[in-house]
Amino acid sequence: MQILITGAAGMIGRKLTDAILQAQAIGDHPVKALHLADVIPPVPPASDGVKITTSTTDLTDPDAARVLTASRPDVIFHLAAVVSGQAETNLDLGLSVNLDGTRTILDAIRSVGAGYCPRFVFASSLAVFGTPLPDVIPDDFAPNPRTSYGAQKLIGEILVSDFSRRGLLDGISLRLPTISIRPGAPNAAASGFFSGILREPLAGLPAALPVDPQTRHWFAGPRGAVGLLLHAACVDTAPLGHKRALNLPGISATVADQIAALERVAGPRAVALIQPQPDALVKDIVSAWPRAFAPTRALSMGFTAETSFDQIIAAHIEDELGGKIPLHDTE
Amino acid sequence: MQILITGAAGMIGRKLTDAILQAQAIGDHPVKALHLADVIPPVPPASDGVKITTSTTDLTDPDAARVLTASRPDVIFHLAAVVSGQAETNLDLGLSVNLDGTRTILDAIRSVGAGYCPRFVFASSLAVFGTPLPDVIPDDFAPNPRTSYGAQKLIGEILVSDFSRRGLLDGISLRLPTISIRPGAPNAAASGFFSGILREPLAGLPAALPVDPQTRHWFAGPRGAVGLLLHAACVDTAPLGHKRALNLPGISATVADQIAALERVAGPRAVALIQPQPDALVKDIVSAWPRAFAPTRALSMGFTAETSFDQIIAAHIEDELGGKIPLHDTE
Repeated sequence: MQILITGAAGMIGRKLTDAILQAQAIGDHPVKALHLADVIPPVPPASDGVKITTSTTDLTDPDAARVLTASRPDVIFHLAAVVSGQAETNLDLGLSVNLDGTRTILDAIRSVGAGYCPRFVFASSLAVFGTPLPDVIPDDFAPNPRTSYGAQKLIGEILVSDFSRRGLLDGISLRLPTISIRPGAPNAAASGFFSGILREPLAGLPAALPVDPQTRHWFAGPRGAVGLLLHAACVDTAPLGHKRALNLPGISATVADQIAALERVAGPRAVALIQPQPDALVKDIVSAWPRAFAPTRALSMGFTAETSFDQIIAAHIEDELGGKIPLHDTE
Repeated sequence: MQILITGAAGMIGRKLTDAILQAQAIGDHPVKALHLADVIPPVPPASDGVKITTSTTDLTDPDAARVLTASRPDVIFHLAAVVSGQAETNLDLGLSVNLDGTRTILDAIRSVGAGYCPRFVFASSLAVFGTPLPDVIPDDFAPNPRTSYGAQKLIGEILVSDFSRRGLLDGISLRLPTISIRPGAPNAAASGFFSGILREPLAGLPAALPVDPQTRHWFAGPRGAVGLLLHAACVDTAPLGHKRALNLPGISATVADQIAALERVAGPRAVALIQPQPDALVKDIVSAWPRAFAPTRALSMGFTAETSFDQIIAAHIEDELGGKIPLHDTE
């Protein structure tokens, strides 16, 4: 099988790449070739069995997109996107990358012709939902984005569903949960603290908590997100019919739940590094976000993610901290 | 007030134009100028008090769109669209007119700048909904289009909502019911018979009925549709928040209900002109369409349409047949 990843230089793109190279397969399907595309030059990891190629590609350029699809990849992971903060600050950039960029790769697939119909896994987001929201969102609940990022992702979903219905591709749009614990440096995203309050104390560093401990949200870990993407690449899409966008399993957790898990894994000294710093703006933004889903369709199709923050924290320690917690009560 | 209508040469565009010229106002707001734009050259009706201008405009041309918005119309009715049959047969044409054309006029509004924020009334459609559907669709039910036309209209809605949330325009998207009785010649649309089985017998002509009499659907008459558009032009949009798309009031009627109304108004000889001609394809298409809505939000904002087919048939006789039924039992 031949794979294309757009947005391959991003955090999820790199972890997805690693997972594919480690298994040299997706599900039961051996992977022979993997192409990594991004506007930022992707750094190809070492690999024995899989042929890796890379390109620095601006997906808003139709010619560049057609080069990517000309080799007829069997599976396309379309992760390339401008993130929510950027899409809100710069409407033109968001429309260009998130809407036109998606349209361009879809049109490039169409242009291949000769019955080419790849599996197209589109990284959408729970940001397609906006208030008012029920406590638990059922599969039929209407998305009403409150950000331009959410609006652009929702438009991508609709194109993926329509192109799938027309037999131009075999698409599936994943409304990914908020990912925690994101590795790396703290960022300015409103959702950043959901990772920071775990990541920083685990590294022995202080972390700010801008919201109430009872704030509830919907999460997956990086491993869970990669697992959802890989399952989407090989699952039977027949049960989806023309409704190609999926709410996904995740963990409905409060900040207090996250902190309790941190205490169980890393002890009270880690928890003591979390400093309440109420921020009205962040509180307001986060209060509009989904708190939980009942992802019946995704569960019936075998999608799974993590089930506890203990599990997510343990994976973070293993994947990002070399198996050790710098700050630990037993040290 | 200065008004712009795109798609002004279409059936609804012409009736909307006539209604505005007759009242020389929308709600309490006197109309001073009306610009009619269409790819088909619009024919300007005679008018005393309102200055009428026309243009033959292809909205997929950004320069042409900017010419339309440069004069800063207070209200824009965006009716221009490729209809469902065409959008399904020709994906490129549908994407170009229904998606890019809408995007282009929205971008043209943005480009005016200097605080310009017009009321933007977008003619969407119940075609944004696709099966499986509940018997009565609540306001929160998720649209899942089963046609490219519905997909493109839904994308337009999302852009209108996002641009409104950003304060770039004051938008409202109307999910118009199927319009019956459409005047004019029979057409090949799958929904055509919903008008034909009334319009043709009222003109003394035979009409084919391709579906079961118990087939139920959601309707407004031409007068009702124009009334919905006019109300959208002057209603307070504050209650909409960032959810700018509205399910609308209409009539949930079976074909048998339509025929019973025809019999009450025009007698059994008119009904005898309806010839059952079962068509499996039309049956299949129509069975996927909405049967009824509970349009709570629209009702609370004062939107109204017709409440019976008797009313719609009476209006058709008045507006299209000069007040007389050629075939009538009492003649």
